Amino acid sequence: MKNMKGMKREFRELSRHITLPKGFVAGASACGIKPSGKRDLGIIAGTGDLAGAVVTTGNQIIGEPIKWIRSVLPRGCGKIRGVVINAGNSNVCTGPAGLADAKTMACLTAKALDTTAQKVLVASTGVIGQRLPMTKVRRGIAEAGASLGLRNDAAFLQAMMTTDLREKSAVVQTTIDRRGVTVAGVVKGSGMIAPSLATMIGVITTDAAISPSVLRTMLRGAVRGSFNAVSVDTDQSTSDVVVILASGQAGLAGEANAKIAKKMPNIKPGTPAYAKFCEALQEVCDALAWQIAADGEGATRVVRVRVRRARNDADAQAAAMSVANSPLVKTAVHGADPNWGRVAMALGKSAAKVQAETLTIKIGSPEKLVKVFARGQGCRFDEKTASKLLASGEVVIDCDLGLGKGKFQALTCDLSREYISINADYTT
Amino acid sequence: MKNMKGMKREFRELSRHITLPKGFVAGASACGIKPSGKRDLGIIAGTGDLAGAVVTTGNQIIGEPIKWIRSVLPRGCGKIRGVVINAGNSNVCTGPAGLADAKTMACLTAKALDTTAQKVLVASTGVIGQRLPMTKVRRGIAEAGASLGLRNDAAFLQAMMTTDLREKSAVVQTTIDRRGVTVAGVVKGSGMIAPSLATMIGVITTDAAISPSVLRTMLRGAVRGSFNAVSVDTDQSTSDVVVILASGQAGLAGEANAKIAKKMPNIKPGTPAYAKFCEALQEVCDALAWQIAADGEGATRVVRVRVRRARNDADAQAAAMSVANSPLVKTAVHGADPNWGRVAMALGKSAAKVQAETLTIKIGSPEKLVKVFARGQGCRFDEKTASKLLASGEVVIDCDLGLGKGKFQALTCDLSREYISINADYTT
Repeated sequence: MKNMKGMKREFRELSRHITLPKGFVAGASACGIKPSGKRDLGIIAGTGDLAGAVVTTGNQIIGEPIKWIRSVLPRGCGKIRGVVINAGNSNVCTGPAGLADAKTMACLTAKALDTTAQKVLVASTGVIGQRLPMTKVRRGIAEAGASLGLRNDAAFLQAMMTTDLREKSAVVQTTIDRRGVTVAGVVKGSGMIAPSLATMIGVITTDAAISPSVLRTMLRGAVRGSFNAVSVDTDQSTSDVVVILASGQAGLAGEANAKIAKKMPNIKPGTPAYAKFCEALQEVCDALAWQIAADGEGATRVVRVRVRRARNDADAQAAAMSVANSPLVKTAVHGADPNWGRVAMALGKSAAKVQAETLTIKIGSPEKLVKVFARGQGCRFDEKTASKLLASGEVVIDCDLGLGKGKFQALTCDLSREYISINADYTT
Repeated sequence: MKNMKGMKREFRELSRHITLPKGFVAGASACGIKPSGKRDLGIIAGTGDLAGAVVTTGNQIIGEPIKWIRSVLPRGCGKIRGVVINAGNSNVCTGPAGLADAKTMACLTAKALDTTAQKVLVASTGVIGQRLPMTKVRRGIAEAGASLGLRNDAAFLQAMMTTDLREKSAVVQTTIDRRGVTVAGVVKGSGMIAPSLATMIGVITTDAAISPSVLRTMLRGAVRGSFNAVSVDTDQSTSDVVVILASGQAGLAGEANAKIAKKMPNIKPGTPAYAKFCEALQEVCDALAWQIAADGEGATRVVRVRVRRARNDADAQAAAMSVANSPLVKTAVHGADPNWGRVAMALGKSAAKVQAETLTIKIGSPEKLVKVFARGQGCRFDEKTASKLLASGEVVIDCDLGLGKGKFQALTCDLSREYISINADYTT
């Protein structure tokens, strides 16, 4: 994540992210779904049709907006004009009337965008089991639609936040086929969860030219190592969704280098352009995932669990997620306790093959690691030094299984009293 | 668990449990492994050889005593004379020297019992990664061996406790083949875990006559619905072990009904005696499992998750454990919040097939349940009543999947700030 600070700084200077790629506009409003009166409805849209792809929750109980998305994009990709997002009410378990509400949101947004409802995605986050206040939503969509432009990026991001304490965004700019290409992303979610079962919603925009089905493949790849590698508490929302939208307008009018100001050709699999775009996309998704872990409910530090030399990548993922999900590991990190036994236990209980004899565990910070376990036994190490490293902002747990070439990296946060306070003291 | 209070009362009156079945003696000592100076070493043994069977942890990283047990009982059952247990040091990840220590414990105990080391099992619980203080252990085994008798049941149980706040035991007496048979059990463990990765250790004694291999089948069956259905925090110790020992002395001298005072025949599969013994064994294991959940770290209430009408039993187990393991469900129970959305989420993310349309969720206490979710939507219910039911000592979450005949019941406890305190503030 060495680039994150740079990206963050860039974002602050620009105060734009989601509409920084060419061909996008955003709008937002405060229509009263959130009792606080804060912004709660946002629209991100293309100035023309966009290539779009989505990855949605693996949970079998799904929100009504997810049903809408799956009905208009049965293969997870297609032509999209825009996305409407609201916070404060997730429209989950609200039955056929709730699904009709989601469709109404798409129709109203389509009207504002002068397109058809089939080209509008809907995402909602907030309390569940309650019907949306559709009179307010109707007004909110009208207002957000009327405000569409290039100066509403922060407002759009605020409109999708629930219990998030920080705004999460990332921008990467690169050159592909001699054209300047921008990939930008925003995300909400205190790590999959929130008082009333909230949600990760991610929106990524780019001005690269990519077909919907290729975009889907790219998105699935990027999500595996980023959003699917973050766990705050093992729970998985009914409404998780990540959307990527590509305008294809990189290199069009306004480009500094005017002589190549023509529409870029579609990026194709197997080309250097493909690899370069995937790299930029991964960088954006990784940065957003890191920000989710850092803003995990009650988090005081980010924990990066690296598993190396597993039998294969699937084993590495299972082992890394088992460590990242272990409450004992997460409380030990919270207490800055270099308790390698809990890490060994979490590896051992996973579905991955693990052997004490070939296992090496190091713990510490991104700058310095201390070897704590090797060849079936604990190592001699200075506990005070190790404890100080665990008290830094980012903790690294490095597990070398010594069995093969599989690797995976998971992100989580520590488990604190504050997590309990946020989730137990809230009353529906 | 309606019988538990009764069993508990019986135990208090008798002040005996683990040696209540005929043919057993117990001993204990305080040899200084625990810094507190409390009892820390116990022996349970037969007056003659016993049929024995074990179920050990599924974790791939295992303690040295587990290695010893597996070496003397490669098929998980055999002739056993006794078990030596210590608390304060779990002898895990201590390498070949640690395995030699476990073997030495078996040898010393065998000497005290006038048998061979191969007939002695070893179990250890406490801090990991440190060698046992063998001089103290040597003295402890000698003292515990010298004290063997019928008056040390409480002392034996105390010697295996670590962070347990309560002593956990259960006794069931029944009649099989016209002989009075007793099944008794003790267990330690604050729900699989403790500050330094402690452990569930369970010992069950009976005077029924059963062959080792039949005993193993019975034990595995009883463990599935009891100890394997308890989860405090999803973590699994490297040292978990449950032992069952059968003396076969039911009906021998001392029996009230003197005319049937002869050795009972072995209980065989497929007979009414087999079913009756399994029922008694299940009752003891269920009672012990309930006590583990009630004594879970930081627990203020027990949570029983019933899943019914799943596609099959495996699905029911996956669904029940997913709800029981969900931090969001456990914090909601702690806050007495009837948040059915979190239950639906936890069911939906499990490996079991779940459909919102056929799902019914009820929550409450063992006495009264409130329907909160049916046919894809939340039900109207009085939140104050539901919240009051959740504030009772035992909470029931009843999930009818409406898909088949599978059922499973899981036990857990709520998740409180105290859990974090116990596990984060402890320093190795």
